[in-house]
Amino acid sequence: MTAVQETVFLQGHIIDSLILAKVLDTILMMGGTFDLQDVKIGATRDAPSQARIVVRASSGRLLAEILRAIQPHGAAVEREADCRFEPALAAGVFPEQFYATTHLPTQIRLDGEWVDVEGMEMDLGICVDPAKARARTIPMGTVAVGDLIVTGREGIRVTPLARPAERDVFGFMESLVSSERPHHPIIADIAQRIQKLREWHREGRPGAKVLLAGGPAIVHAGGREALTWLIESGYVHVLFCGNALAAHDMEAALYGTSLGYGLTAGRSVPHGHEHHLRTINRIRAIGSIEQAVRSGVITGGIMAACVQCDVKLVMAGTIRDDGPLPGVLTDSMAAQQAMRAAIPGVGLALLVASTLHAIATGNLLPATVPTVCVDVNPAVPTKLADRGSFQAVGLVMDAASFLTELARELGWRP
Amino acid sequence: MTAVQETVFLQGHIIDSLILAKVLDTILMMGGTFDLQDVKIGATRDAPSQARIVVRASSGRLLAEILRAIQPHGAAVEREADCRFEPALAAGVFPEQFYATTHLPTQIRLDGEWVDVEGMEMDLGICVDPAKARARTIPMGTVAVGDLIVTGREGIRVTPLARPAERDVFGFMESLVSSERPHHPIIADIAQRIQKLREWHREGRPGAKVLLAGGPAIVHAGGREALTWLIESGYVHVLFCGNALAAHDMEAALYGTSLGYGLTAGRSVPHGHEHHLRTINRIRAIGSIEQAVRSGVITGGIMAACVQCDVKLVMAGTIRDDGPLPGVLTDSMAAQQAMRAAIPGVGLALLVASTLHAIATGNLLPATVPTVCVDVNPAVPTKLADRGSFQAVGLVMDAASFLTELARELGWRP
Amino acid sequence: MTAVQETVFLQGHIIDSLILAKVLDTILMMGGTFDLQDVKIGATRDAPSQARIVVRASSGRLLAEILRAIQPHGAAVEREADCRFEPALAAGVFPEQFYATTHLPTQIRLDGEWVDVEGMEMDLGICVDPAKARARTIPMGTVAVGDLIVTGREGIRVTPLARPAERDVFGFMESLVSSERPHHPIIADIAQRIQKLREWHREGRPGAKVLLAGGPAIVHAGGREALTWLIESGYVHVLFCGNALAAHDMEAALYGTSLGYGLTAGRSVPHGHEHHLRTINRIRAIGSIEQAVRSGVITGGIMAACVQCDVKLVMAGTIRDDGPLPGVLTDSMAAQQAMRAAIPGVGLALLVASTLHAIATGNLLPATVPTVCVDVNPAVPTKLADRGSFQAVGLVMDAASFLTELARELGWRP
Amino acid sequence: MTAVQETVFLQGHIIDSLILAKVLDTILMMGGTFDLQDVKIGATRDAPSQARIVVRASSGRLLAEILRAIQPHGAAVEREADCRFEPALAAGVFPEQFYATTHLPTQIRLDGEWVDVEGMEMDLGICVDPAKARARTIPMGTVAVGDLIVTGREGIRVTPLARPAERDVFGFMESLVSSERPHHPIIADIAQRIQKLREWHREGRPGAKVLLAGGPAIVHAGGREALTWLIESGYVHVLFCGNALAAHDMEAALYGTSLGYGLTAGRSVPHGHEHHLRTINRIRAIGSIEQAVRSGVITGGIMAACVQCDVKLVMAGTIRDDGPLPGVLTDSMAAQQAMRAAIPGVGLALLVASTLHAIATGNLLPATVPTVCVDVNPAVPTKLADRGSFQAVGLVMDAASFLTELARELGWRP
Repeated sequence: MTAVQETVFLQGHIIDSLILAKVLDTILMMGGTFDLQDVKIGATRDAPSQARIVVRASSGRLLAEILRAIQPHGAAVEREADCRFEPALAAGVFPEQFYATTHLPTQIRLDGEWVDVEGMEMDLGICVDPAKARARTIPMGTVAVGDLIVTGREGIRVTPLARPAERDVFGFMESLVSSERPHHPIIADIAQRIQKLREWHREGRPGAKVLLAGGPAIVHAGGREALTWLIESGYVHVLFCGNALAAHDMEAALYGTSLGYGLTAGRSVPHGHEHHLRTINRIRAIGSIEQAVRSGVITGGIMAACVQCDVKLVMAGTIRDDGPLPGVLTDSMAAQQAMRAAIPGVGLALLVASTLHAIATGNLLPATVPTVCVDVNPAVPTKLADRGSFQAVGLVMDAASFLTELARELGWRP
Repeated sequence: MTAVQETVFLQGHIIDSLILAKVLDTILMMGGTFDLQDVKIGATRDAPSQARIVVRASSGRLLAEILRAIQPHGAAVEREADCRFEPALAAGVFPEQFYATTHLPTQIRLDGEWVDVEGMEMDLGICVDPAKARARTIPMGTVAVGDLIVTGREGIRVTPLARPAERDVFGFMESLVSSERPHHPIIADIAQRIQKLREWHREGRPGAKVLLAGGPAIVHAGGREALTWLIESGYVHVLFCGNALAAHDMEAALYGTSLGYGLTAGRSVPHGHEHHLRTINRIRAIGSIEQAVRSGVITGGIMAACVQCDVKLVMAGTIRDDGPLPGVLTDSMAAQQAMRAAIPGVGLALLVASTLHAIATGNLLPATVPTVCVDVNPAVPTKLADRGSFQAVGLVMDAASFLTELARELGWRP
Repeated sequence: MTAVQETVFLQGHIIDSLILAKVLDTILMMGGTFDLQDVKIGATRDAPSQARIVVRASSGRLLAEILRAIQPHGAAVEREADCRFEPALAAGVFPEQFYATTHLPTQIRLDGEWVDVEGMEMDLGICVDPAKARARTIPMGTVAVGDLIVTGREGIRVTPLARPAERDVFGFMESLVSSERPHHPIIADIAQRIQKLREWHREGRPGAKVLLAGGPAIVHAGGREALTWLIESGYVHVLFCGNALAAHDMEAALYGTSLGYGLTAGRSVPHGHEHHLRTINRIRAIGSIEQAVRSGVITGGIMAACVQCDVKLVMAGTIRDDGPLPGVLTDSMAAQQAMRAAIPGVGLALLVASTLHAIATGNLLPATVPTVCVDVNPAVPTKLADRGSFQAVGLVMDAASFLTELARELGWRP
Repeated sequence: MTAVQETVFLQGHIIDSLILAKVLDTILMMGGTFDLQDVKIGATRDAPSQARIVVRASSGRLLAEILRAIQPHGAAVEREADCRFEPALAAGVFPEQFYATTHLPTQIRLDGEWVDVEGMEMDLGICVDPAKARARTIPMGTVAVGDLIVTGREGIRVTPLARPAERDVFGFMESLVSSERPHHPIIADIAQRIQKLREWHREGRPGAKVLLAGGPAIVHAGGREALTWLIESGYVHVLFCGNALAAHDMEAALYGTSLGYGLTAGRSVPHGHEHHLRTINRIRAIGSIEQAVRSGVITGGIMAACVQCDVKLVMAGTIRDDGPLPGVLTDSMAAQQAMRAAIPGVGLALLVASTLHAIATGNLLPATVPTVCVDVNPAVPTKLADRGSFQAVGLVMDAASFLTELARELGWRP
């Protein structure tokens, strides 16, 4: 067996951020072997370390696979070269050898200079403007003929995340908090972050927005009041949801608690979803949620708070929807673009009780944004916590208890 | 307290189909009381029974709520009248008092005659053509100005489902099969149904199609071969899925098992979703899934089987999608309509490992279609099994094990 | 096929308590058929109904199976006879034809008189003292040679539960409350019951005790303070738990929150279970939990509250235990007997976050005791809610959120 | 703030086995800081590495906590000394400063010599015989007055596990296999291990036994035939279970499939647990499971295979048990000791569908035994996979599908 090999270079907080360990793990897992050369380890937390790794594999194809797999950990092939790019030959289609992005900070080499790629997000391509020495991510579906798209793997540098300096819940290896762990300290940490972000946001500092992406269980399970308070108190600046959360929230506003759940001790009224349909029909007749709030038809709740506090609201449609409400983006690609456009400036993401919105939002977020995923079904936070960064925390608990405890921690007294 | 009252009438298999019990339960649960009058009970299973029930409530509003809640069980208010209808005043908006449908067989009274409502599905309106004495369901979003929409509750008759005569898994009170129950007898019953439906379908009998709505876990967990075989053997005629199932299926076709999962003992390759993106990009370059199959690029798997066996395929887009693949309906309302259009003729629905598709498809199906919901997360089958009919069965197990066992039962020998 | 038949008789609230429906469902499900004769239905809720059912089956064996299956619904074979009994021939072994009990109120016929069976609990035998005309349940393991044990099925009458008159969460068909339903109204109902039971208990009325059976997740997840308050406030009178709940509670008392979880933002300290071991060792050195509390070593928490408030504590050992603590009944049959002995007088059972204790306690409770099962894993409440009575409610939520909300509802202000 | 510090030393495969990373993570997580000194990294996989770490903390107490937490990763305090020990002053009570074991290979220093501790298992003490220069673990409950128990932390050396040389499912960072991953390659790896262990076992090599610990869902869900075949084929040598698995297995043997589940399409017969009770009663009358098999009463199934193939069977009692069966160890400490005694020689542990047995067995196993935990509820495999070694794998799937697929992989053709 003739082995092929390549030398890669790693630097930064490669020890305490587990980067070196993960790179070696990946090489072995995929069937390669390695030699370590010139490992220098910083003596303190602040001093960076570096290592040169000779990666060996049984075939060129496997070697290429391994190199691609360890690149997101910052493993750069040694020989530096400019990145390559090719024009797209058809609208909505990348050149065949396109480079697929990770959610980590990325640079490309243009004319010997390293240029930051803007709009980092995973699973996109990179579109280059060599004249201006600029590069930005681009979704497959929006590629135009002639767009210059980065191909291959050379001249591309990914910066893995270092462990954050802050000593709160974010930043440790163990990122899933089961239902058998105390939630309170985690929620206290999140509250502290949110408190600080509100200050920063009021001071006009960038990157201080809080994004909440949530499902209708927030309303069903009794978290509506807490979320409304959080929005009204200036703690949430962007809301991603679907038709259902908005409709159930306004159903509560229109039909109150004297009917439906309230009257019957929390049990579902048979055929009780009629209220839901009537709510949607009424808002459609009025023309918009904003108009329904401004005209006094909807006087409280999550949607009213969003309108009154200028929260950026993106409602994405699905095949489950009744109606849908005016304002719901029924085209999934248009909705994705609207979500994408709302993400710059987000400094914390709360993904609550919605598999679809949690995964979709997680895909759009750069790795640098701290993210909390809350769901009573452990499968969802497990998926999100597994984002390969120090910034994702999963909490196994129900939406209402989470939002209520978070709001209480921030001063809510219902 | 002045009580108001109304007399309703029930008939059919109201004892053994639990209808009478559910009606009385609902009345009590919502805070009403009742007297039973003139109960006549058929002596045998085939002889129908009947009952007259005086419903009492503390207010007219509560009484109306109760009557609305028991109507889906077939409880008809005694005084017969023609149904009322009003023209829609705006596109996409029902008249305020619109009648919201259930998924049960429904008739309306026009000029003294009972007319079947076509296209039964829950949470729609009813559009009437009095000249032709016809009525059909209509989604809120497709209402045109001037459409005559049924309002109120009079002159509408709902027929609850009787317990089916067949002695298989469908038709009993206990409809959720946990992971601690033997799955085999259930799957054997389903296989028998599917076998019979295939015969009927080949004979050209209506209502003999099998619909499968599924998520990408079918491919992830190893159920691809079994589902491909089921399609190729003529056991599945309609497939509802999203971008992900189609993309992962064709990724398996294009990148085989020598890379990714196969090589590494079933473990995810870091950054392995690149294959997924490249697959989508390639199919976009080719132009369509059908073309990719016909041209020999995709030579096996679920999508290839669908193309080769003329399976009706509806792919609905979501905000999670990469690409998406050509053929994916990115507009959720268009996708819903395409699903709706594919449902007539379906005689059995299998909802496998996809919360979104399971719930969306469940919403579109009339109560008369036997439905099996399979998911490893008990929350999903619980929701579906709770459809209030004898026709829904939930199975708590993983997609791959279910499809493999079903295919084996039908003769697959991998 | 020669069919065999038998006529059974049902009476009571057989319509609105679903009894008639369930009996007919069972007959059909098991493969029998029926004719209904002489059905008389009470016109009001209070007026009882009655029905005579001719059950037919294809064999005597199947008929016997069906009759056994419908007996717990109160279906009594018409010809009345005294019950039969036989002496046990060996210690710990029932006569072969022993009658196995349900958890419903049961009578046996001795010398023409119907006698109540004492200590109703499912899956036991019935031991008769003909001289005193008394009967009581008896576990298999405690049978002595010569004990007279009821055999066969004649002369035994089971009374199915009627729907309770009270209009709270107990008593409806739909008994599982998922994480997508509002928990608050359910918890409010439970709080109201507990409030009333405390009053009754203080007045010395029987059947007013509240039993809590719980697992260590109560402590892990942060519900310790709430449960302590509930005990101290006189809302809990019997506690069933294992070694782990007691040990973790006292670990919190001994090692406080400054170490372990508290210091490190709720994350588990590696090797942190050492505190757990040291706690157990210390209490073993002291000799008993009571002594540890009385001597001031343990100054707060669940165990301290139990000692100070004279709560009946039963700690059952398992193979998972370290130590165990003094007071833990390591013999499972002795522990079961101690639990059994503590049940008379219980008017409400809360089964919280412990599969083992929830199922074990559920097995010991008569059907007449309202039971709430709380677990974040829906499988456990589903199992318990499926007890076939109106008295069991399942709640899908985490232990800490449940206990905190219940305590708040009862006036706790932490 | 005066900081305290201590220098610790790490060596071995501290890079690719993640040991260095975990130690640094733990120090930071607990609030300490560190400097790295003299890091030497082996150039190849086989060459060991070493590092000297200066750990700093704000207090002596915190420093001690940190040192205790990193010791299980092999971090040894530099100054070498003999370990200390003290006599136990009371039966069943350790000296207050007792050393609590981990499940990793451990040595203690006696008279300047490093001595292996026998019977490694977590959460025990270490009992020393200085005269013979021997040491063994000892459970708290079995300590006798005067036993010499290791105290403090000096003179104790723990060896963290290196990543195994074999390239199968064991040995990678990612140890939980969700329901969305392909199970087949994992099961194929396990099958290969089991195949090899059977060979070794037949050759009389030590450490080649396969242990299965399982719950009754194995029988309920339809895995009985597969497990029986595995035992009969010599693939399982030790079985840990409870009363329920044994009783349901023999119920299937005695009452067949023509009644109960079989007849009624897999649905539970109301009151069907009577068969369960009658089975237990019958075996009690016979006197033992072995006698029931030998006398031909029980002719097939898991228990029969255990008796016929000389499988070591440990049945542990719980408070849920009916009966229990003869042979069930009702005392939990006696059962734990019996399990402990059966573990030496085990080379692979399969923990299937039983939270109680999975956790209890996991606690008793040394870290060096590869362990697979299978459960449809992800919480259980998550807990077990989190054992901090490379040897634990969790699989989210139902027991029957797992056992069936494993048996098929090993040649079963049902």
